[in-house]
Amino acid sequence: MDVLGVLNLGEVAGYFSKMAMFPVFDLAYYIVSILYLKYEPGSVEVSRRSPVASWLCAMLYCFGSYILADIMLGVCPIDYFQHNSHILLASAVWYLIFYCPLNLFYKCVAFLPIKLVLVALKEVVRTRKIAAGVHHAHHAYHHGFLIMVITGYVKGSGVALMSNFEQLLRGVWKPETNEILNMSFPTKASLYGAILFTLQEAHILPVAKSTLICVFTLFMATSKVFMTARHSHGSPFALIESWVCHVLFGSPLASDDDHHAPAAPAASPKTKEELSEGTRKRKSKKAE
Amino acid sequence: MDVLGVLNLGEVAGYFSKMAMFPVFDLAYYIVSILYLKYEPGSVEVSRRSPVASWLCAMLYCFGSYILADIMLGVCPIDYFQHNSHILLASAVWYLIFYCPLNLFYKCVAFLPIKLVLVALKEVVRTRKIAAGVHHAHHAYHHGFLIMVITGYVKGSGVALMSNFEQLLRGVWKPETNEILNMSFPTKASLYGAILFTLQEAHILPVAKSTLICVFTLFMATSKVFMTARHSHGSPFALIESWVCHVLFGSPLASDDDHHAPAAPAASPKTKEELSEGTRKRKSKKAE
Amino acid sequence: MDVLGVLNLGEVAGYFSKMAMFPVFDLAYYIVSILYLKYEPGSVEVSRRSPVASWLCAMLYCFGSYILADIMLGVCPIDYFQHNSHILLASAVWYLIFYCPLNLFYKCVAFLPIKLVLVALKEVVRTRKIAAGVHHAHHAYHHGFLIMVITGYVKGSGVALMSNFEQLLRGVWKPETNEILNMSFPTKASLYGAILFTLQEAHILPVAKSTLICVFTLFMATSKVFMTARHSHGSPFALIESWVCHVLFGSPLASDDDHHAPAAPAASPKTKEELSEGTRKRKSKKAE
Repeated sequence: MDVLGVLNLGEVAGYFSKMAMFPVFDLAYYIVSILYLKYEPGSVEVSRRSPVASWLCAMLYCFGSYILADIMLGVCPIDYFQHNSHILLASAVWYLIFYCPLNLFYKCVAFLPIKLVLVALKEVVRTRKIAAGVHHAHHAYHHGFLIMVITGYVKGSGVALMSNFEQLLRGVWKPETNEILNMSFPTKASLYGAILFTLQEAHILPVAKSTLICVFTLFMATSKVFMTARHSHGSPFALIESWVCHVLFGSPLASDDDHHAPAAPAASPKTKEELSEGTRKRKSKKAE
Repeated sequence: MDVLGVLNLGEVAGYFSKMAMFPVFDLAYYIVSILYLKYEPGSVEVSRRSPVASWLCAMLYCFGSYILADIMLGVCPIDYFQHNSHILLASAVWYLIFYCPLNLFYKCVAFLPIKLVLVALKEVVRTRKIAAGVHHAHHAYHHGFLIMVITGYVKGSGVALMSNFEQLLRGVWKPETNEILNMSFPTKASLYGAILFTLQEAHILPVAKSTLICVFTLFMATSKVFMTARHSHGSPFALIESWVCHVLFGSPLASDDDHHAPAAPAASPKTKEELSEGTRKRKSKKAE
Repeated sequence: MDVLGVLNLGEVAGYFSKMAMFPVFDLAYYIVSILYLKYEPGSVEVSRRSPVASWLCAMLYCFGSYILADIMLGVCPIDYFQHNSHILLASAVWYLIFYCPLNLFYKCVAFLPIKLVLVALKEVVRTRKIAAGVHHAHHAYHHGFLIMVITGYVKGSGVALMSNFEQLLRGVWKPETNEILNMSFPTKASLYGAILFTLQEAHILPVAKSTLICVFTLFMATSKVFMTARHSHGSPFALIESWVCHVLFGSPLASDDDHHAPAAPAASPKTKEELSEGTRKRKSKKAE
């Protein structure tokens, strides 16, 4: 905190944590989200065969976090759809990514330098959503710490947590895995972020919320940009998690080989996810 | 409107749009809905093995639209079950259709002339549900045009939109398709109807609501009666849709052969749905 | 009632029906529930691979009834998670059952005499939940008899009714069956109990609620203890149900052989459930 005070970073953090997300940051969020939808195998065919299903999936990718959080808190799940400008913007992005002549828009936003900027902007929105989710739940349940964590987690992870049902909408069904069983980096980070923001809200973590938002955004943005640039799916938490899980839950410790290559901790036995990741990359090449 | 004025149809429309649905129209709705449930392969065996599951499916077929709309608007999904008389009527219909000695009731209502009348009455209820859904959503979200469309759509389509989960209740799981991916005529018409009623509610469509209800009911009833009589599964929208989707979404244009037989636009490659439709017909024959 | 009066059982029933459930009875409920989770094939591996998924499943096993009832009544499904002490207690039980060194805790609570006591205590909680569910629904819907039955049913059956989705969380998907299609004894008993409590609430059953709670608890506890001790999966209702279903729904009558062995009415053709039950037993042996 002292360092922040000296550098006058507190004010910067305060300003940063109050910045409006709409339209620039939200736009980046929509673009990256729908880009990931297009990477999904089969999504391009669905967009040709059934535009309504494709549009619905795109909306889930963009607003899944609001829908899930609303379900969790027992309010109207399509409540967010009253924000017509947000919906219109997301729909425009969906149309441009899937149906733009010559695939121009897709080629632009999937161009690595641009994509890295968009990915960084998306993480700004994600952090803000987690903070807002925790705050909202705190308002409704003053001592419901778990409800705060769940709401923040759900707000941060969004569509990933309902990927099984989102896939079902596109006629794909993969019951053998889900985002809880095999957490990806953003889902895990959302969980840890939600816990941090809950601790802050409960005054256990002696940090100003704006500072926490600022620091967590920086961490998320750099991690994701780094991972996107390196096409890596490892997680910075791998080592610590491996030890904690071993001690607490008796999970098998990751082998030494993995420690030497912490960026790809699950590399040795090529998992289903990674194979499908390969297909995804090839598909997206084709889509271009 | 002038023509309507001359023929004094405005008053007729007003009267028609205020007519009580219970019990005659609702009864027809329940009968046709549960008839379709009996057509589903395996539903008769389920009714023998587990009456509770069968009854629950029947309730979903009759009240699925209310349940889904309540879920969408975040209110108690079994709220409609407080109308004891409606539930009793639907349960009686379920019992008569599945367990009536000699299958007498089923044979009566599945007799084509009677079925056509019932189908027409069912469409009256459907249109009213769409209008009511849009109106209800408009009340809660004055500018939530999308929420109005979704609520009206869901009220019109009913159980079809949750068919995957309704089938699951009977131990059937078909993840490769769903009603959004392959919209049937009533689902599509409900979507278009919901859009029309939303435009009317937003005063963009300069038509009285009673007139719109009247016209849309007429369209739906004649279409459905015609299609039921001809055992057709085509849609009057096929040609326009094919062009619009081709222009907007780059969907492949239906071939010339299909244009000559617009009643069965997806006929050439016999799809899974049509095959199961065949089985359904045979099953229903057996059930008789 | 006279007999109860003579024996002064009315007061005992009144006292019994007001006894606090937390922490002793609730603890037994959590232990038995999470014990059943550990019996599920694959759950031990999930607990090693993904503690979060395992913990979530444990929470569903402990609080599924509250979650489902909240969903049914349209309120916040994670509402119950504000009771931090309950969650902490259930989490501690989960940790001890899955990760206790040498599997000591599991061996203790799975020791038959102790297990029988815990099972009996669990049924006390179940009955109270059914009564509370019916009462709560009666408060919200004075004449919604069906809503009362559904809420009570859901409160009594808990996770069983959403077992398909609970399994999905662990990467298991068995669409061919569900708890409605093949009701187990506790689910059936919850349904009958919910009907009884609804009749009591509607003043059709001329019995004091405390007496009904007391009698139903006794019935449930003895039945479950007896069945657990004999490793039986039959149901005391089998004979009556068989006749009622035959008369009302034309279900095939159970054969004479089954009548001679009412404790195992579905024994002859070894069903999938029983086979998996066998595996479960073996797995649990291994887990020890």
